[in-house]
Amino acid sequence: MPFAERKGCEKSDSKFCGVETDFSDDFRSLLSFNCDTDHGRFDFVLVPLMNPSYRPSLVEGINSETQVLPFAGSDLVLAPLEWRCRVTGKISSWIDLDAKDETLRLDSETTLKQEIAWAKHLSLRSCLLPTPKTTSCANYARCVNQILKGYTEMELWLRIPLMDSDSEDPKDSWELWNSFRLLCDHDSSLSVALDVQNMLPSENALGRWFGESVKAAIISTQCFLPTTQWYPYLLKNHQKLITRFFHHDVQVIVSGKPVFNLQKDSVNVTEGMQAYLDYLSNLFCKMEPFSAQELKEVIHRDRLHTPLQPLKENLEAHSYEMIERDSVKYTQYQRAIAKALEERVPNEKASELTTVLMVVGAGRGALVRASLQAAKDTGRKLKVYAVEKNPYAVVTLHYMVKKRGWEGIVTIISCDMRFWSAPEKADILVSELLGSFGDNELSPECLDGAQRFLKLDGISIPSSYTSFIQPITTSKLYNTVKSINSLSHFSTAYSVKLHSVARLAPSQPLFTFKHPEFSRKPNNKRYKNLRFNLPSDTGSALVHGFAGYFETVLYGDVHLSIEPTTATPNMFGWYPIFFPLMKPVEVHPKSPIEAHFWRCSDSTKVWYEWSLSLPTLSPIHNPNGSSYSMGL
Amino acid sequence: MPFAERKGCEKSDSKFCGVETDFSDDFRSLLSFNCDTDHGRFDFVLVPLMNPSYRPSLVEGINSETQVLPFAGSDLVLAPLEWRCRVTGKISSWIDLDAKDETLRLDSETTLKQEIAWAKHLSLRSCLLPTPKTTSCANYARCVNQILKGYTEMELWLRIPLMDSDSEDPKDSWELWNSFRLLCDHDSSLSVALDVQNMLPSENALGRWFGESVKAAIISTQCFLPTTQWYPYLLKNHQKLITRFFHHDVQVIVSGKPVFNLQKDSVNVTEGMQAYLDYLSNLFCKMEPFSAQELKEVIHRDRLHTPLQPLKENLEAHSYEMIERDSVKYTQYQRAIAKALEERVPNEKASELTTVLMVVGAGRGALVRASLQAAKDTGRKLKVYAVEKNPYAVVTLHYMVKKRGWEGIVTIISCDMRFWSAPEKADILVSELLGSFGDNELSPECLDGAQRFLKLDGISIPSSYTSFIQPITTSKLYNTVKSINSLSHFSTAYSVKLHSVARLAPSQPLFTFKHPEFSRKPNNKRYKNLRFNLPSDTGSALVHGFAGYFETVLYGDVHLSIEPTTATPNMFGWYPIFFPLMKPVEVHPKSPIEAHFWRCSDSTKVWYEWSLSLPTLSPIHNPNGSSYSMGL
Repeated sequence: MPFAERKGCEKSDSKFCGVETDFSDDFRSLLSFNCDTDHGRFDFVLVPLMNPSYRPSLVEGINSETQVLPFAGSDLVLAPLEWRCRVTGKISSWIDLDAKDETLRLDSETTLKQEIAWAKHLSLRSCLLPTPKTTSCANYARCVNQILKGYTEMELWLRIPLMDSDSEDPKDSWELWNSFRLLCDHDSSLSVALDVQNMLPSENALGRWFGESVKAAIISTQCFLPTTQWYPYLLKNHQKLITRFFHHDVQVIVSGKPVFNLQKDSVNVTEGMQAYLDYLSNLFCKMEPFSAQELKEVIHRDRLHTPLQPLKENLEAHSYEMIERDSVKYTQYQRAIAKALEERVPNEKASELTTVLMVVGAGRGALVRASLQAAKDTGRKLKVYAVEKNPYAVVTLHYMVKKRGWEGIVTIISCDMRFWSAPEKADILVSELLGSFGDNELSPECLDGAQRFLKLDGISIPSSYTSFIQPITTSKLYNTVKSINSLSHFSTAYSVKLHSVARLAPSQPLFTFKHPEFSRKPNNKRYKNLRFNLPSDTGSALVHGFAGYFETVLYGDVHLSIEPTTATPNMFGWYPIFFPLMKPVEVHPKSPIEAHFWRCSDSTKVWYEWSLSLPTLSPIHNPNGSSYSMGL
Repeated sequence: MPFAERKGCEKSDSKFCGVETDFSDDFRSLLSFNCDTDHGRFDFVLVPLMNPSYRPSLVEGINSETQVLPFAGSDLVLAPLEWRCRVTGKISSWIDLDAKDETLRLDSETTLKQEIAWAKHLSLRSCLLPTPKTTSCANYARCVNQILKGYTEMELWLRIPLMDSDSEDPKDSWELWNSFRLLCDHDSSLSVALDVQNMLPSENALGRWFGESVKAAIISTQCFLPTTQWYPYLLKNHQKLITRFFHHDVQVIVSGKPVFNLQKDSVNVTEGMQAYLDYLSNLFCKMEPFSAQELKEVIHRDRLHTPLQPLKENLEAHSYEMIERDSVKYTQYQRAIAKALEERVPNEKASELTTVLMVVGAGRGALVRASLQAAKDTGRKLKVYAVEKNPYAVVTLHYMVKKRGWEGIVTIISCDMRFWSAPEKADILVSELLGSFGDNELSPECLDGAQRFLKLDGISIPSSYTSFIQPITTSKLYNTVKSINSLSHFSTAYSVKLHSVARLAPSQPLFTFKHPEFSRKPNNKRYKNLRFNLPSDTGSALVHGFAGYFETVLYGDVHLSIEPTTATPNMFGWYPIFFPLMKPVEVHPKSPIEAHFWRCSDSTKVWYEWSLSLPTLSPIHNPNGSSYSMGL
């Protein structure tokens, strides 16, 4: 029984909770006991499929024609849907494909393949692979890779301890996962099941896992403490971790024997497991509910979008609709415009002077409305030009002017701002040409064209903007890009609501643009290299690419930002941008990342190129904008 | 308001009904009038987007910066979802992109592009393109093709009359569609909207359209006759046609003025359109409801599946599950086995003689059960060997034998029948190794191997089987194969529940296999060429490939068939097979189709090759089984 029907979690795996059990010959009873009775109402069992005493080498020589493999029951003991939804197969934990002993090694391979074939026969959704016995796990990975490449409909979860329990020579267990995953070439059907024990690694080390493909967290009953009511509970750090798993669609599996109630007779062992489930369920229900806006955005998490190109292509009605809905943004614009108006026209001249304000890229009129409202609020007189190149948005502008009675105040100009011959000069230029990465919708080029008709002492809103980048782990996005199956997709930037992401170091500012810029010939080409250091307690990590953000000064102290640490609250108009790397790069402690970013242009387009020089050299991505560029 | 909530029709377009209207400046009222009031509760309107008097050449010279295009209202007059779901844009019918007059030609292109851009701005789901003015429509097609290649999210429906109304020199209007579609290279976003008038073409000519991508049928009010209640109705042939459209997801649009009630004052014109809707709704509801089995199969219509390869790959539990569900098939097997038992052992010897029956490819035991039931029904004594190569199905066989108490009667052999050394010879060999195309699951090769342990006078069930082929039009399947974007997919056969298909000529038998075959060295290679003639009243048609079926004699007069004209009722275990052609071939009246099919083999595999020699030569598909073969 899933934890709860939480809105927006309909498709989340994290509402399901499983339990790890021993092998049983009677699968029907095993399932009923753990999933259907008062002993436990878990959603699924993690259970060995084959008798653990089986070794292929011991049955050799017996007549193979009458032999039957020692699986638990047959496919008919459960209904097909029960097999699929209620059973995760636990591959025999004795197998060791990198053992020195050849018999053991060959037995291990035979058994692994037979168990996977059986799981495939049953159409199980997932199987758990035992933790590699050592870090040199090439033969194990080779065999798993063959399975992955031959059959893609089943998830394989590699069991990895969150902390290495070897107290003498503790290793970073993330390295174990990383080796295995690299050998299997980032196969998207291979994921991690994390074994959570008493000890937890540092916050930064933990954080890495949220950019990895973690499908399950197996939590030992040893992690729980008894309360005075003899009921189990988790310490704060464990609570926080489990909640974070819930937020990331990681399903939880309880493992081990109930340990809290040994001193109390009335609670028996079987009721015990239900108590752990109750605790986790309670934790799940205590999570902050989604806001209305979050609910809308859940389905956009980690979905790659091609960034809009509003200059080259006309936006469609539904895009305007989306953009206009972000009321926080327009409130900020209105504040900035009001500030500019008050600064430009002193109170005592408010009734004489008319400010000429031009909205360049007026769209369907949202900034026109904000401007008129700012004028009303400040008691300033305004004359507005609404300049828009999209003839289909102009249809709406005409409709708006008529409907709202703006005829005397607003003049509609159906023209590209870069080529318009304005009849007079403006006091204030207002625009909203910024993309997720600031300049990536060609605001610099457009405003350079428009400042021809701005007075020399005129004001541009926005007056400046800056892009930011940050190295991230994100195996999900990497695999999505990879699945498009063309190298050019790694030389493209994507707009994406980042979720399954580990931010490995604080973001740093990249390119800044200021408007107006009368003093020098406009040059919008840029180059910068940035050095990032991972916090020392992170351990190693894999960098799949860079997240990009922007911050803008609209006017004076009125800002907008989507950079995580300074983000404008409740503004949702922009998702971050993602620059992938063709080949993910392993970063070790104390070894910095050095990234190079360029903004290039020719007569018809603008584009970014990017590369790494540390810890290793990467090819320069997107040379000449061959994969991704913004058309002028 | 959709016609009805019919189970299995949840995603069908045919439950929606539209109405064609004139241009109106007041879109809001237009929509309310036709969709929300007693005047009509149509689901959507087919309506011009732009003032029909607009000609780009007439507004030239006017200052373009302050100009606005004469669209009806703005995007804001309807909600985004209303635009999307309730409006199909009707492109100005005056446009003629192949006109001799250059002004008209250029005006037409400008207008078409502006209207499509507007429809795109509004995110309309579909637009109706006017019927090409002549059969030479290359420039019209060029322009539409550019639109299709630049923007794939909108469907374009080309309006085509079902019958050419030109009484002097009537043309086959299908040719008009075919030219346009070939010029646009079968683009899957280009479909047909058929104009249905009073006169209908022959049944065979009509039939062609059900293999084409027909999205809408525009039915004129002129087709309806008044009843004595002054209510409209359709003659039988029109009724049949509309019902067939419903079955094929074609949405109906009513066009024209209400004509039936002019003599009756109490019914006004506006109520009139509702009467047509009521009639169509009634027709929709009168359709035969889906059977339980049909309901399950609706989602499989026209879905391509890779044919199973049960010899090379082990079937999974869910495949056995599906196969075993087909009770009609097993009843036929049981009848055939009973017949064979009775023939082999006379009544008077029933209690002495034990028949040795071997089920070769026993799977999870369905034929074992049928055999034991047949023995019980006929009072014959039986000894059964269940031979199965899949070790995971063998697990189930052991379980079944134990559960049903067959221990003394059934011996399970975990072995490939081709390599088994049987301890004795069989009287009867029973197998179910047939695929959609008879021999395509390698029944001939398997049974050749198994007849080693059949007595010389023994019986094989099945005793023979024959494949059939038939040329078909199926633009949907062709486009699906094309979308996989690799030529090799045109050299592959698919298993598919054919639905959007026009069967152009009766099917003909292709390859036959008989068992046992002791008399000669088994040779399972085959070659045959077949000639198909389209009925003379069909007109021209496009052949996208061949549908394949099979028929088998199990024993004596007990048959199974999936060939449409002889199909075993209520048997659903097999879908037909589809052999595509890389390049669809146009067939004209009186010109036959000649097809060549080969069954080839080498030591590791069996495969088909196929080609055409008439009406044109095609490349031979799948040479050496390079794209598709069955592993031995």
